[in-house]
Order: sequence, then C-alpha cells, then structure tokens
Amino acid sequence: MEQRYISPAVITRLPRYYRYLNDLMDKGTERISSADLSRIMNVTASQIRQDLNHFGGFGQQGYGYNVPHLYQEIGRILGLEHEHAMIIIGAGNLGRALANYVNFERRGFRIIGVFDKTDRPGDESIRGHRIMGTDKLPEFISNNRVDIAALTLPSEGARKVCPILTEGGIKAIWNFAHTDLDVPEGVVVENVHLSESLMKLSYALHADENRQD
Amino acid sequence: MEQRYISPAVITRLPRYYRYLNDLMDKGTERISSADLSRIMNVTASQIRQDLNHFGGFGQQGYGYNVPHLYQEIGRILGLEHEHAMIIIGAGNLGRALANYVNFERRGFRIIGVFDKTDRPGDESIRGHRIMGTDKLPEFISNNRVDIAALTLPSEGARKVCPILTEGGIKAIWNFAHTDLDVPEGVVVENVHLSESLMKLSYALHADENRQD
Repeated sequence: MEQRYISPAVITRLPRYYRYLNDLMDKGTERISSADLSRIMNVTASQIRQDLNHFGGFGQQGYGYNVPHLYQEIGRILGLEHEHAMIIIGAGNLGRALANYVNFERRGFRIIGVFDKTDRPGDESIRGHRIMGTDKLPEFISNNRVDIAALTLPSEGARKVCPILTEGGIKAIWNFAHTDLDVPEGVVVENVHLSESLMKLSYALHADENRQD
Repeated sequence: MEQRYISPAVITRLPRYYRYLNDLMDKGTERISSADLSRIMNVTASQIRQDLNHFGGFGQQGYGYNVPHLYQEIGRILGLEHEHAMIIIGAGNLGRALANYVNFERRGFRIIGVFDKTDRPGDESIRGHRIMGTDKLPEFISNNRVDIAALTLPSEGARKVCPILTEGGIKAIWNFAHTDLDVPEGVVVENVHLSESLMKLSYALHADENRQD
C-alpha cells in the first residue's frame, strides 16, 4: 500500500488522535467539526487540519471530519490492521502489567510467550503463559513468528538478550530497560524510560517554582 | 537560584545525559572529550556542545567536559537536589512496579503511600505500605506533604481522583492512565501512555516495510 511521507512530529501525535476518534466511535459519532475536535483535544484547529490533511480525511468545508474514515486511516498508518505477535522478556511487575493490558490485545497485539532469566516452576504462569527461561528464546523464536519483543528486565539482561532477538529476526523491540540498545539496521526500538520520564516531571515541577521567583 | 531558559527539546534530552554521566561517574571518569561523549551517546558532537552550553559545563578547548560538574548541574536543573515525596494510586502490577524501582529512591523520589479503589486487608502491602482506599486521600494529603502523585489506575478512576489531588495541593502528576487529565494552572502532568508507545513502535515497524517496497 502506498505510504506518503509523514513527519515524526505528526506520527507522535497520531495515537492520540486515534484514541479520541475511538472514543467518538464508541459514542456513535459519525462526524465532527474541526472546532469541536479542537475543543475536546485541546489543540488548535489549524494544527488538527495540518496533521489530518495527510490522510485526505476531511471533506468539504462545513462537513468536518468523517470519524470512522479517519479512525480507519490512522489505524492503517499505525500498522494496526496487522496482527502482532509479542513476547515479554522479564516477568516482574512491569512484565506482568504489560501482559495483563487487555487494551493491547484489542488492538491486535497478542502475547505469545513470557520469559525470565530462568525457568519457573510449572505452576507459575502469566495469563496462561508458563514463564520460560531466556535460554529457550532461540528455539522459541525459530518456531514461532514473533513481531515484537518487550524488554522488561534490568539493563544488563536487556543488553545480553537483545542480539539473540535480532539474530532471530525480530524487527521491533519495546525497551523498558534503563539503557540504550545497539541494534542492526532495520530493527526499530521504542524506548520507555520511566526514570527519565520522572526526571522530566521533576524538572517541570521546579521550573514552575523558578518562574514564580 | 537563577535559571536560564532552556528549550523543551533540550530538557527532553537532559535525563539521557544525566544517565551517561552517571555511568561515567561510576567508572571514576573525571573528564571526557566531546568526541568520546559523542561516540558513546551516539549523538553529534555539535548537538552535545549546543545542549551542554546551557550549563557552562565545558571548559577550555582541549579539556572536554568535567564529568562531576556537569552531572551535578544537570541534576540541579532537573530538580534532583530536592527530595520528592510520592504517592502511588492504583495498586495493580504497574503500581507495584513503580513502588519497587529502587532507582527512583536513589534519586530522592520517596514513596510515602499507596492507594487503590478500596481499602485492602491489613496484610496486603507494597514495600511496607499498607494499601489504603482512595477515600483516605484527602486526609492523607492534608497530613503529609506530597509532591508527586503517580496514577496507575484505569482512566475513569484517574479522572475522578485527579481533582482530589490538585485541590489537596499536589502540583505534579505522573499519569499512566490512558486519558488526558484536566488540571488547574500551575499543576504539571507527565504522561506515560503505554498503548500510544506501542502504536508508535507498530508504525515504525511497518514504515520500514513500506520503505523497502
């Protein structure tokens, strides 16, 4: 399918549009004016126009946006018409949290395996997946199509396991470890660094104090 | 303390500098050349120079960066010289994961309370904190200084609890709920939307396929 160029800044905003459009769909809204969408999303109408122009998603003046059409188009751009098989490596609280987000499954991200440093006794499982040792990874990856690996283990473990994943052909890594991963070309990494997010919050909290001086 | 204006793009990069400088400190590195820092961080030397110029943190040509000085300056800008008292609202896996990150505590973010929708039996606690019902929040907030509230509960609960927090005087919210929060001026929110992060990864995975066509 042809894909037009879309800037990274727009891409970052797309999931948020997708979420609001989803809420509108849930309410049965068929179309929405630029002004109303701007109001509920707290973004200028011109920003919305610019962003959504990429999708040919707004018709004649006075019509506004066709909600189901835009929703579907943005979903397509985000790759959500595909099913994604995902494994989680790191069976701590964070790994468990990811495994239990039903929302991911609703979007076609299906957990097919959960791993940790070592095998766990047969009765310890997460959402029906027995926790396997990371030594089982190469075999598992060669026997199953895995699209995405979520790394929810400490930095050192993440760096160790990363080449096993990429050599096994996994092209997408969702990295929660507090480290940058070195991956071959063609492999994409999305980082979620919680400490860094918390530091940004701390910055914002004190920047405000400084402004009040 | 005087604070110079620093652009949001630089702020976003600061925690990553802080992490690398911390690693260098751990190794006992006293100074590092711009070229070496550029190499390990995989950022251009000119980007680093521009970013770190804000901190007067690099001395004469040929000296490079003074690691402990820069580390301290960036920490100060990020507000990390303060202690932060944090509460966690939502005692599911994600809340537990946050409560158990020792790294946060090392940086002065101290968990002082954990809440969930309803009170839990006396023996259910997270890191020594008995889980309290959210009905106890107003009293707790008025009796304890709370700097940051982490919201790790579903969207509806997060929207309900948010005004209680801000009316109680909490100025910083770390929001993991899959919704945007409406807060009064002067309150800062840092969002961690995991579904949206996963969608960005999905986009990147398929954008790559498209490029290969």
